[in-house]
Amino acid sequence: MYSDFTLADDRPAYIQVKDYMKRLMTTGALQADQKLPSTRELGSLLHVSRNTVLNAYSDLEDEGYIYAVKGQGHFVIPSINTNETEAQPANVQLDWTSRLNDYARLAEANDLMKHGIRAGKGAISFTSIAPDEKLFDLQNVKRAFLDRMSLEGEVLLNYGYAKGYKPLIDYLLHYMENKGVDVSGKDLLVTSGFTEGLSLVLAALNKGHGRILCENPTHHTAIKNFKMHGYAITGVPMEQDGISLADLAGELAARPYDLAYLVPSYHNPTGIVMSPQKRLETLRLLSEYETPVIEDGFNEELRYSGSHIAPLVACAGGGNNSVIYLGSFSKILFPGLRVGWVLADKTLIDYLESVKRARSIHTSTLDQSLLYQYLYNGNFEKYLKRAKAEYKRKYELAKSCCEEWLPQHRLTGDGGLHVFVQFEQGLRTRELLEACSAQGVVFTPGDIFYTDGGGQHTMRLGFSRVSDENIRKGIRIIGETARRMV
Amino acid sequence: MYSDFTLADDRPAYIQVKDYMKRLMTTGALQADQKLPSTRELGSLLHVSRNTVLNAYSDLEDEGYIYAVKGQGHFVIPSINTNETEAQPANVQLDWTSRLNDYARLAEANDLMKHGIRAGKGAISFTSIAPDEKLFDLQNVKRAFLDRMSLEGEVLLNYGYAKGYKPLIDYLLHYMENKGVDVSGKDLLVTSGFTEGLSLVLAALNKGHGRILCENPTHHTAIKNFKMHGYAITGVPMEQDGISLADLAGELAARPYDLAYLVPSYHNPTGIVMSPQKRLETLRLLSEYETPVIEDGFNEELRYSGSHIAPLVACAGGGNNSVIYLGSFSKILFPGLRVGWVLADKTLIDYLESVKRARSIHTSTLDQSLLYQYLYNGNFEKYLKRAKAEYKRKYELAKSCCEEWLPQHRLTGDGGLHVFVQFEQGLRTRELLEACSAQGVVFTPGDIFYTDGGGQHTMRLGFSRVSDENIRKGIRIIGETARRMV
Repeated sequence: MYSDFTLADDRPAYIQVKDYMKRLMTTGALQADQKLPSTRELGSLLHVSRNTVLNAYSDLEDEGYIYAVKGQGHFVIPSINTNETEAQPANVQLDWTSRLNDYARLAEANDLMKHGIRAGKGAISFTSIAPDEKLFDLQNVKRAFLDRMSLEGEVLLNYGYAKGYKPLIDYLLHYMENKGVDVSGKDLLVTSGFTEGLSLVLAALNKGHGRILCENPTHHTAIKNFKMHGYAITGVPMEQDGISLADLAGELAARPYDLAYLVPSYHNPTGIVMSPQKRLETLRLLSEYETPVIEDGFNEELRYSGSHIAPLVACAGGGNNSVIYLGSFSKILFPGLRVGWVLADKTLIDYLESVKRARSIHTSTLDQSLLYQYLYNGNFEKYLKRAKAEYKRKYELAKSCCEEWLPQHRLTGDGGLHVFVQFEQGLRTRELLEACSAQGVVFTPGDIFYTDGGGQHTMRLGFSRVSDENIRKGIRIIGETARRMV
Repeated sequence: MYSDFTLADDRPAYIQVKDYMKRLMTTGALQADQKLPSTRELGSLLHVSRNTVLNAYSDLEDEGYIYAVKGQGHFVIPSINTNETEAQPANVQLDWTSRLNDYARLAEANDLMKHGIRAGKGAISFTSIAPDEKLFDLQNVKRAFLDRMSLEGEVLLNYGYAKGYKPLIDYLLHYMENKGVDVSGKDLLVTSGFTEGLSLVLAALNKGHGRILCENPTHHTAIKNFKMHGYAITGVPMEQDGISLADLAGELAARPYDLAYLVPSYHNPTGIVMSPQKRLETLRLLSEYETPVIEDGFNEELRYSGSHIAPLVACAGGGNNSVIYLGSFSKILFPGLRVGWVLADKTLIDYLESVKRARSIHTSTLDQSLLYQYLYNGNFEKYLKRAKAEYKRKYELAKSCCEEWLPQHRLTGDGGLHVFVQFEQGLRTRELLEACSAQGVVFTPGDIFYTDGGGQHTMRLGFSRVSDENIRKGIRIIGETARRMV
């Protein structure tokens, strides 16, 4: 005893002594009513000052771990050590697996972090589409934090509101208006990222027909959540400028759908941007069948060239309340700050707000207020300009490497942080991945994005966090390996 | 046009000009292919420098809102304005109310922020049990943030892990060990507060018998979530030292339960701390029926006096995996930082992690890392000591005021941030509230905490955010009003 104590030099010593002593008592190394060493003695045993021990003992007494007897020293309070009591409850080992429901099982079975591609140490990994953290401007983030803390620190640290931090809500409403959205009759709920927004909407809506319609392929997290909520998923094929209208019309005519889910900008995984004309036509069709649409505003800030294209929720106009827009800055700004938003019909938002409150009270006020200040200061504009220039450069590099090296059938991606490659049908990218992985290169096989088991000849290459050199090297290796397999 | 532009002095001017021009374009005030004013002209119209307009126009061109024609100036890109296109989708007004499910409806119907007690401006409000933000030590919070940002800022702002921020997980595991928990076979998931933890557990577990057991009265948010998940709720009466064992035994023998939910420390709303002996006895009973228990670690850090009492999860010992412990510092530290944790059987945590990832990816890394650094620095210990002293003082004041003024039948609350008052059965606290509210004093009527419509003669008084003067004045008014009603 006492010989295994080590002192970290960046933490108050008395707290470390206190923690250490608590551990001895709760584990039973020091037993009920046992006398503790004197402060002088313990100081010498642990190589700390007597004063440190005095402080530790004083805290332990305050917290009800030890008691003092005048002239005799300190003793362990009996109720601390639960191991010795006679009424110890039975040893019960519940089989938790059998107590889980399908919702939890499907979450686990479709969890890419658990069952996805693992890159070995030092591997060139094209699996991520997170932003490159080297582009983050930490100085401005710190400034935004300190600015906000000085203005209203106490308030930020106490409870906020489920709907969100008011200045951020107002900022985002204005931001959406600048994208052409008529916000009358609509409202905005701040969420902990896009994913929470999607989860809230799916949790709140009636599963009338049990069917949902989306692009095929589409965002894996969305597929996972549809499955968890028990929806049958119909994927509509993609064309070069977005979802196939003929197929969409056919599906809508064939059977009723509760919801559609669309990613019109930098569609994940194909990177396709839906044309303005197609956006209107898609909305017209969905509106005809009174099918609401969840619009995933994924990466629409990352347009590198060409005209601004209004999101579906703007195209719908003020007279149409059928679009639920899910926004987020995560893919371009700071994913670690879990902030996204839902812009939709007022009535719907009112209920989503209550569901959010019941589930998690509210989104971190610190994240919200820091993001707000950062946006307000104009830092986002400057950062976006720099990030876009850098990602555009990488996008073009990746694209030209694909064209040079890959025996590809078709490459899509108008920008964003990834490109999507289709090989000839015979080439199975799962096998390609296995072969490349052995050479230290990994990517995301496209099949995980398909709603119907298709896409076995496709892959997604995320380039945002890969160096220029590794983009060249990695794609060359994938290309050489693929050629050998064709 | 241009006369309604106002310039805020704490934001870059060019961004404000850009925003303003976007608005004119997206609303159709400036139409497709319309010529914009020259930079000189607009500068003069908006009272900004020509350089500001140059910057704004340059950004607008980059973002695809306007195009330049050499020698002629700038023009609006046609696709911006969605109001004029011929293919405008139909005006569809979906009836969202009819599309919501019971989960959302129950969240709304039981949303206290919407249907609860509203305090008028200047009212003395005993409804809150949030910490007093005046006690927060902002300097140390700022320091913790800056420390952490300097160490690993870029990493903190990019994606983290669903399970939580590793240093915080390790810290909390150690923290729980110091409470006497045997963590072998267990694991820990960081959540966005206690509430997310509860929501995740309820969402993941099979609703075998559809029945849940809890103390009566109990935490309102828990009742809300049980209802949302479709559970029939059985409330077991409280005694002075916690749940009635005889009633608990009776209920367990009468019918099978999927889950129990208990708040052993500073039970909300009664403030009762369950005795060590009763903790063991309760666990023994529940284990006998293989009924898992959700332990709400609510405010157990706020013990003002007496011995440390081990939480249920510690009492259960290493051989019993039936306790799911939900922890949080929110009620004492910073609720604005949405951080809590679930400590439970490894298998269960593994599934909860996937559900959490599917729902919101992860808890704010900034919140987690800031909290970790604050705890590690030893600031929590110092803060807790100061906060406890202050809350203890207020608790004693509130208690003595109740004893002096209220025609009460019974007062419970061994500490914490509130006391719970039971009047004689005839006195209805809803009516009392109405009468007090007219005099500028509000509190929480106890009926909202009851699982069976009972408690109409009870009320909860939260004192943490009420000044000494107002505690005296408020309780006096409640007492005088109650005496008139008896």
